[in-house]
Amino acid sequence: MEEEFIQSKQNPRIKALSRLQERSGRRKLGLFAVEGLRELQRCILAGVEVKEIYFCPDMFKSLEHSGFITSVRGKIPLCRVSEQAFEKISNREGCDGIFGVCEQWKTSLKEIVLPQDKPALILVADRIEKPGNLGAMLRSADASGATAVLLSNPITDIFNPSVIRASQGAVFSLKIAEASEGEIFDFLKANGIKTYAAALGATKIVWDCDFKESSAIVMGSEKDGLPQDIIDRCDEIVKLPMLGQADSLNVNIAATLILFEAVRQRYKKI
Amino acid sequence: MEEEFIQSKQNPRIKALSRLQERSGRRKLGLFAVEGLRELQRCILAGVEVKEIYFCPDMFKSLEHSGFITSVRGKIPLCRVSEQAFEKISNREGCDGIFGVCEQWKTSLKEIVLPQDKPALILVADRIEKPGNLGAMLRSADASGATAVLLSNPITDIFNPSVIRASQGAVFSLKIAEASEGEIFDFLKANGIKTYAAALGATKIVWDCDFKESSAIVMGSEKDGLPQDIIDRCDEIVKLPMLGQADSLNVNIAATLILFEAVRQRYKKI
Repeated sequence: MEEEFIQSKQNPRIKALSRLQERSGRRKLGLFAVEGLRELQRCILAGVEVKEIYFCPDMFKSLEHSGFITSVRGKIPLCRVSEQAFEKISNREGCDGIFGVCEQWKTSLKEIVLPQDKPALILVADRIEKPGNLGAMLRSADASGATAVLLSNPITDIFNPSVIRASQGAVFSLKIAEASEGEIFDFLKANGIKTYAAALGATKIVWDCDFKESSAIVMGSEKDGLPQDIIDRCDEIVKLPMLGQADSLNVNIAATLILFEAVRQRYKKI
Repeated sequence: MEEEFIQSKQNPRIKALSRLQERSGRRKLGLFAVEGLRELQRCILAGVEVKEIYFCPDMFKSLEHSGFITSVRGKIPLCRVSEQAFEKISNREGCDGIFGVCEQWKTSLKEIVLPQDKPALILVADRIEKPGNLGAMLRSADASGATAVLLSNPITDIFNPSVIRASQGAVFSLKIAEASEGEIFDFLKANGIKTYAAALGATKIVWDCDFKESSAIVMGSEKDGLPQDIIDRCDEIVKLPMLGQADSLNVNIAATLILFEAVRQRYKKI
């Protein structure tokens, strides 16, 4: 298999790849980019198929980078590109010369299979705006062993490069679905999953809730929190105690604290 | 009181202020900058004295900005500056034309007074590198009602503009000290505070610890965690369960989870 080399940043393939930085471009091509050695290793480790890898040896940051390219040669189609072409496709400052392309997978609710042997723990995130927050929430959900993350009214798609980076690979292994709030609440109800809206106006503290049965933690957007109609659909409205000068926590911090409270309640000392 | 106007970004005062972006400049002048309307309001609300405010009306983002300047006129010395001069002193993208200057306060251990009526909850953060992480840890410590944050071997100072921003005002109200690890452990021991090192190699899960007595949670740097000599000084070594594909949590997330576990254990249902 002869390896290609692309010199010009005006090359049509380079131009097409640069569109993966935008949601519209990603959706049109059905692809997304996984940039950086560490992210791409996590992607492969999680069993996600990499369609092709673009690399620029002049930008490699360690011997590990060339070792990686050698290890995938013959298994994944490779294309060497010039520094200027790489900069055109890259979405990162301080990029490291490794850029993988993968096919987007389906993120419909149908893909979510619930465990039969233990209670589900689900994070519902409504209208999260910042890719960094969404990625961090995926990372926390993964760390808590959550069954799935359901995104209602998504503003940011999970294939956004900043989501992928902030998720630290969780996006590749976690079960994630995007759907309308109606579909999500129907799904939760049909599966007997109790819903907990996190809202500042709540009177119940999360520590007084019983998360031992199948539970879904429902978090709202950074700016506005949950809209009233979603709060009304939930079985309980809960909050964390705020003991400092601020009146709220970052949405990712709050989500993590509640997810791990569920983990704590289900934890059995060995 | 006649208000000054500075037009040139070469003005010596503007040049001096621009040095507040760097730690060496801050230390030399004994001052730090509080940029942005929201931050400055939090600073004033927390009772921190603002020495002077520089403002550029052309950069104001809302009527609230001019209202704020009107409200402090006559109370805090004001200086109007041109857009180019403001950009020279500003550390932010999308700055809003408000820039306060405050005196640094003492951050020695002597400033830390422990409560007599309830157990202390202290966060010790060792060698935290990223200002955004340090600021987020201060925000979480404040939200958990922590007694104090003690920074051992600090790499980033708390007057760094990114720390101030990420702390969301917590830096102004929280008790914070910077000291060597020796001084900090002497202080904790002298005050009968039990120390818990958060380390991946721990066998004890935080949920099996008793944080009801005075406790200090000791967290290490983003890259390396805690060095062995600090772990050895601690009374217990603890960890959070990791149920996902990743082997660690962000240092701020981990610190927040442990702090709030202490809060949970001390929480009494009303």
